[in-house]
Amino acid sequence: MIHQDTIVALATAAGSGAIAVIRLSGTEAISIVDAHFKSVVNSKSLINQPTHTIHLGHIVDKTRVIDEVLVSVFKNPNSYTGENVIEISCHGSNYIQQEIIQLFLRNGCRMANAGEFTLRAFLNGKLDLSQAEAVADLIASDNEASHQIAMQQMRGGFSSEIAKLREELLNFASLIELELDFAEEDVEFADRSQFKELVVRITFVLKRLIDSFAVGNVIKNGIPVAIVGEPNVGKSTLLNALLNEERAIVSEIAGTTRDAIEDEISIGGIGFRFIDTAGIRETEDVVETIGIKKTFEKIDQAQVVIYLFDADDFKDQRSVLKVELEKIKNKYPQKPLLVIANKIDKVDDILISKIQTEIPEIKLLSAKTGFGVEQLTNSLLELINTGSLRNNETIVTNSRHYDALLKAFEEVQNVKNGLETGLSGDLLAIDIRQALYHFGEITGEITNDDLLGNIFANFCIGK
Amino acid sequence: MIHQDTIVALATAAGSGAIAVIRLSGTEAISIVDAHFKSVVNSKSLINQPTHTIHLGHIVDKTRVIDEVLVSVFKNPNSYTGENVIEISCHGSNYIQQEIIQLFLRNGCRMANAGEFTLRAFLNGKLDLSQAEAVADLIASDNEASHQIAMQQMRGGFSSEIAKLREELLNFASLIELELDFAEEDVEFADRSQFKELVVRITFVLKRLIDSFAVGNVIKNGIPVAIVGEPNVGKSTLLNALLNEERAIVSEIAGTTRDAIEDEISIGGIGFRFIDTAGIRETEDVVETIGIKKTFEKIDQAQVVIYLFDADDFKDQRSVLKVELEKIKNKYPQKPLLVIANKIDKVDDILISKIQTEIPEIKLLSAKTGFGVEQLTNSLLELINTGSLRNNETIVTNSRHYDALLKAFEEVQNVKNGLETGLSGDLLAIDIRQALYHFGEITGEITNDDLLGNIFANFCIGK
Repeated sequence: MIHQDTIVALATAAGSGAIAVIRLSGTEAISIVDAHFKSVVNSKSLINQPTHTIHLGHIVDKTRVIDEVLVSVFKNPNSYTGENVIEISCHGSNYIQQEIIQLFLRNGCRMANAGEFTLRAFLNGKLDLSQAEAVADLIASDNEASHQIAMQQMRGGFSSEIAKLREELLNFASLIELELDFAEEDVEFADRSQFKELVVRITFVLKRLIDSFAVGNVIKNGIPVAIVGEPNVGKSTLLNALLNEERAIVSEIAGTTRDAIEDEISIGGIGFRFIDTAGIRETEDVVETIGIKKTFEKIDQAQVVIYLFDADDFKDQRSVLKVELEKIKNKYPQKPLLVIANKIDKVDDILISKIQTEIPEIKLLSAKTGFGVEQLTNSLLELINTGSLRNNETIVTNSRHYDALLKAFEEVQNVKNGLETGLSGDLLAIDIRQALYHFGEITGEITNDDLLGNIFANFCIGK
Repeated sequence: MIHQDTIVALATAAGSGAIAVIRLSGTEAISIVDAHFKSVVNSKSLINQPTHTIHLGHIVDKTRVIDEVLVSVFKNPNSYTGENVIEISCHGSNYIQQEIIQLFLRNGCRMANAGEFTLRAFLNGKLDLSQAEAVADLIASDNEASHQIAMQQMRGGFSSEIAKLREELLNFASLIELELDFAEEDVEFADRSQFKELVVRITFVLKRLIDSFAVGNVIKNGIPVAIVGEPNVGKSTLLNALLNEERAIVSEIAGTTRDAIEDEISIGGIGFRFIDTAGIRETEDVVETIGIKKTFEKIDQAQVVIYLFDADDFKDQRSVLKVELEKIKNKYPQKPLLVIANKIDKVDDILISKIQTEIPEIKLLSAKTGFGVEQLTNSLLELINTGSLRNNETIVTNSRHYDALLKAFEEVQNVKNGLETGLSGDLLAIDIRQALYHFGEITGEITNDDLLGNIFANFCIGK
């Protein structure tokens, strides 16, 4: 399916840079640019140039020279979209970018919608839907883990796993439907025991994919870690220590669902979002009480809780600390909790022994000297089940895929039950078709305009 | 001069976009990328690919796939820098950009300095110095006029004009120096009357170029226009009216040398910076007095002054307005002044006649209805001597060029005086050599590391 209209958009980041790239795609992409391009090398038309070649020249609007540019020619079907594509590498001023785009808008192009280049790539069969979605994930990825997952998905790892299951299921569906044509003869083309075996295998794979979403989702969005502790116990020193240890990128991002500032630190290639809290120290102060309420809200949203205290405080605030700790444990029995005594460089061994005796799970830390920081990062990574990531298994990060997998799983269970209860072939076929439908939703064999609209609206313009 | 080391930098604007371009230049550029590139099409090495071709594949670090990219190959000398150049078009996430750059930094590249690609282009003779400077101007240009000037300079318009003068002068210098070799024979190889003619011509051209700087400088930086008027006379409505008329870009930029907010509006392709002032109404209030002082400071910096008043106020504030107007005229007799009566839609014809009689130069305006806006924009453009811009003449915008031209002009005057007073050939030759030196400074025949350092430090990294 080659679209008739030619679209244009800036493909590089907005703003001024050394160069910018403007992309056109569509039947007329090459001829539209050719009409406004004067080569400085030869007089050959761009239309007669081979695909994947680059040409130096000027973009001109009648007599006016807009810029000296490099034009890259990609010919249908050997391009990102599968259509004729031109990429113009121009000087990176906003003014020039706009002048060139405006020129082509006046001369036969229209502005591309968000994600429209990738949508065309999908519609022209260059990518399946889950691969197209991975393009957006790849651009959004900001650490090794999320990048690796998106890359694997873009290269078709996920699609091929789904496609394999789908094909096997489809074979059985065809056999069972064939039986229906010979209903009065009571034949079984589809070997029921082999089929049961397949359904068990599909169930197993689906379950693994569905379970991987818990990991995938947090990896994609960063793992929220609430740090509970009073002021001055060394929360920011701890964050800096983690940062130095890993030489990773720190950014302060405004929490989207809360008013707190979060620090995102990449540890072992995985993004952790550290959420500072006000602590849970009980007072009669109304404002502080509100603070405690907020702290619990943040713990609710966190995947991991760090309870941090100043080792020296264990001398005179021992009972308060233990009460607070019990409170967290009682309220969140399932949530991974790391209890950390900070500033151990300032206290003596007797106190340390005492802390270790009374809080057996304690981790000793000196954020200042770096003692215990490595152990802490290891603990954080252990808490996240990154086994599947390390084993290069397919991980589901997309909630649309997750939903489709859950639905497919449900239908496969119906098939399984049907097989066990000896359900008739015609009813069995309906359940199998339903499961196939949900597989198809993931890779885009089954789709509709609303779904595509939703998916590509999240892309940037120019992609 | 081909540099031995290979440099790498992000060439597109910083930030996340659909794609980003990473550029490498140097002897090893192609082989360094080749070692980390796996084509998806064939197994041919990038080294064996022809220049100006594009290759789809993966950037890999050992077994890890960093991204699917397009690699453009440019072979020495057919590249921007004149060296081997690779441009990698990758997915536009910050993470991927950094991973790819880091990969090459670990494998034989170093980070490019600001402007280093263009510096290499200059050192390798792909551009002269004034053309290289125009590249930075082009990227900074944000309206038609500054873009046109930079484009002309980058395409060599200015250089060729200077080079022509230089060559003619050089011919005479050679002839005069030849005379010195035959000093005892008292010959004149250089025809003195022809030489005088040349010097007059050079003087004329230099003067035009020097004069053009006044226009060039304001066009490059935007023409500052101070709007003097009391609150509520319609200053912001006027700016909006100018804006609508021209459908141009407005941006609020914080004044660099003052604390006021300025509106930049492109009128007829030329950037005007409108500077709001507090007016000059006399009061006994200390704060207002400070305001008046600031208004005069802003008028000092402006190229054009607009005195704006509410036509209706002419009824009861006639004398105040006229006193203010006289004050501006007396203080700035040379500065172009536009006197504008706004809101004429609200007053009757009798009052309008009265204003026109008492202030003959008055321009009538209704910013609200749009009456008089076009006349105002024409007046603004008339005040700027854009004749040379329209005639496509060379305009000097660079203060370094301006300085060199002034010095060359001075030396040429010395030559002229020398010719008139019959100065001996050896002394004449010294002055000519000096003039030639300053011409050479512009195009970069004469240069030094400090100068180059200063020029290219103003470039962005990646250019």
